[in-house]
Amino acid sequence: MVPDEPPLTAHELGEEAAALIDELSRISAEEDKLTRLYLTPEHRNAADLVARWMRQAGLDVREDSLGTVRGRLPSSMPAYGEKCLLIGSHIDTVIDAGKFDGALGVICAILAARELRKRGIDLPFDIDVLAFGDEEGVRFPTTLLSSSALAGTAPYSELDARDANGISVAEALREFGGRPENIQDLKEVPEKLVGYLEVHIEQGPVLEREALPVGIVTSLAGAERHWITVQGEAGHAGTVPMDARKDAVSAAADLIVSMETAAKSARSDGVVATVGELGIHPGAVNVIPAQVKMTLDLRAATDRPRAAAIDEIKARAARISRKRGCPIEFDQFHEVVTSPCSEIFQDAAKRAIASMGIRPFRLMSGAGHDGQAMKALTDIGMLFVRCRKGISHNPSEYVSIEDMGMAVEATVRWVAEIAQQEMKA
Amino acid sequence: MVPDEPPLTAHELGEEAAALIDELSRISAEEDKLTRLYLTPEHRNAADLVARWMRQAGLDVREDSLGTVRGRLPSSMPAYGEKCLLIGSHIDTVIDAGKFDGALGVICAILAARELRKRGIDLPFDIDVLAFGDEEGVRFPTTLLSSSALAGTAPYSELDARDANGISVAEALREFGGRPENIQDLKEVPEKLVGYLEVHIEQGPVLEREALPVGIVTSLAGAERHWITVQGEAGHAGTVPMDARKDAVSAAADLIVSMETAAKSARSDGVVATVGELGIHPGAVNVIPAQVKMTLDLRAATDRPRAAAIDEIKARAARISRKRGCPIEFDQFHEVVTSPCSEIFQDAAKRAIASMGIRPFRLMSGAGHDGQAMKALTDIGMLFVRCRKGISHNPSEYVSIEDMGMAVEATVRWVAEIAQQEMKA
Repeated sequence: MVPDEPPLTAHELGEEAAALIDELSRISAEEDKLTRLYLTPEHRNAADLVARWMRQAGLDVREDSLGTVRGRLPSSMPAYGEKCLLIGSHIDTVIDAGKFDGALGVICAILAARELRKRGIDLPFDIDVLAFGDEEGVRFPTTLLSSSALAGTAPYSELDARDANGISVAEALREFGGRPENIQDLKEVPEKLVGYLEVHIEQGPVLEREALPVGIVTSLAGAERHWITVQGEAGHAGTVPMDARKDAVSAAADLIVSMETAAKSARSDGVVATVGELGIHPGAVNVIPAQVKMTLDLRAATDRPRAAAIDEIKARAARISRKRGCPIEFDQFHEVVTSPCSEIFQDAAKRAIASMGIRPFRLMSGAGHDGQAMKALTDIGMLFVRCRKGISHNPSEYVSIEDMGMAVEATVRWVAEIAQQEMKA
Repeated sequence: MVPDEPPLTAHELGEEAAALIDELSRISAEEDKLTRLYLTPEHRNAADLVARWMRQAGLDVREDSLGTVRGRLPSSMPAYGEKCLLIGSHIDTVIDAGKFDGALGVICAILAARELRKRGIDLPFDIDVLAFGDEEGVRFPTTLLSSSALAGTAPYSELDARDANGISVAEALREFGGRPENIQDLKEVPEKLVGYLEVHIEQGPVLEREALPVGIVTSLAGAERHWITVQGEAGHAGTVPMDARKDAVSAAADLIVSMETAAKSARSDGVVATVGELGIHPGAVNVIPAQVKMTLDLRAATDRPRAAAIDEIKARAARISRKRGCPIEFDQFHEVVTSPCSEIFQDAAKRAIASMGIRPFRLMSGAGHDGQAMKALTDIGMLFVRCRKGISHNPSEYVSIEDMGMAVEATVRWVAEIAQQEMKA
């Protein structure tokens, strides 16, 4: 294939991406905000729109049994065999969402595939652009179902999960036009894959702080979640002297500050600890709290420093518990291990980004992504795109046109670098 | 009057008090717990029972326009004029209450009046035993109405306050048999009063710690309450590095620990600070909290150390706010100034208690009582009775029979001491 027109500039690519982002963002369940949940009529319309874009980009489109839209750009060099590079993101959103989370990655992949084709870049593998439907896990008590199915880690039982209206995944899927009975046929063959790439907004402030449009993800952080129960003794706010109290909220506060210190002083970068929910019992202005229940969300770039951090936090809790006579219990209810990104993909991204005159910068992903499911199937790689103030899951989520253009161009060059590598191998 | 039989021992008085406490506690709105709110059928039955006890104790009984039962023991020495010593407590309870809070003070006063009469103790004043009906302030958004009316500080508008079913105080009062239109006629003439005495369970752990059955109250603590709002910035629990966060719950925790330290290190005894309610926004396991709203209840034995403590707390909040970039606001919604107890009544109580071979011990009241309203009318004095573990407003509230006996005997001697003093004056 030979280019028949000058390639678009990054700015032009950015404007194109911005127009598609806007068009997709108008498909919502709510008039004045963006809400697009898995297997809803909005998801149906979004999938159809994305399929149309894929066809316009010259891709062969199909939709899998779980509603994932797939657009194929065939290898330009069949002699290299029948391997495939997957590249995508998701088109479902949270409630009252921003318009870039997920959507930008799908649009980047479509535009990059088209550019790869138009620029006549040698591809020793097929490219499959993926638009997953269940990344946010908002409608059903399940998440990453579309990507887990490709990895072969989604059991039939997931189809029985029900939404708030009692509709099961299987029922919603049939309504959508999917085929739930085929969930286990979706498993890809690892030997036929080059890997899975994803472009996504950072959802954090690091790239903005570094003044960089894009960054290379080193790993998808492992995470664990605990309920922490702090037991005190209720008492009258006026009649129990300070030194005779077992105040659950003071003990909990002591622990919150101490956990923050532990995370900040962890030897490894990227340890983050968050108390996001907290409830007081009995919760009256003139009663010393008898009990506090709160959540701890703990993440780190790799699993060892996370394990060290929870050990340190529990040791601190034990000291506070002894000092204050308030028993403190941890009850873990969630854990995801770290998913490291392929070093080869990271190095290819480094060369691609450097070739654009941008300083290559590596960072971890503290958020979860489809890559966590795909890691069970194949090597993964991710590029992050700067978003304003790190704000996400919110209507004020924002990526500049320039940065979107940089992201598309970087994706084109990243795939080209991986293609070069593949041909050398 | 001359005694016609040997006086009862403290133990016998305690057994009598315990029997009356049990009988009164059976009058409840709920089968398996004690709940007796102002102007309910239960209040009606309790008032009738107390009136019967007063008559059996030889008192002249009437019920005032707001439902307060009053039993009079006339002066034995009319030459000293027509002054009156008020002594009482309340017969309303909180929901799922203990059986001693309020009830013990009324029963103590009735038994003490009877003993004073039976023992022929010289009384240069009348005694009026009072059983107030609205101390807990649970049913209506008003409190201390019965005692405020005697002090002349209850405006007609209080009668318009409505309960959760929309019934006004005035309506409930008419149903009860009261006369709301007479509320402002209840005001007592200060010149005709010796003062107001009350016996009450401590509702705190101090007397238990001191191993004393009774103690002398120095003042009813002043109190103020604030809503504290801590403003942070929401963020993804995984993607915002620790040093880039404005975490409202960490800032609030920092402040809670700091307020505790401020109260503990206050130069004056009896400063207590309590955070009893706390809410997090948005409150999700994986979101850094954007805002925390919490209550502060601050009390001290006198007003000056309380003012110093809130100044110190606000200075600490300002430092935390600057350090963390999280604005912190205080919004005061309640204040009651300190009500000091009469030194003369305290000294009389000291002599009375010492005469029983008990070490006289002074302590503040951190809880509110009818004395706070009566203070606007006349001098006040209070005796506290040890309660187990300081637990109150709870079915496990407990006072031993021995301690109840000591409380009755101390009340008899306390009134006798005041009578002696009055005759000397």
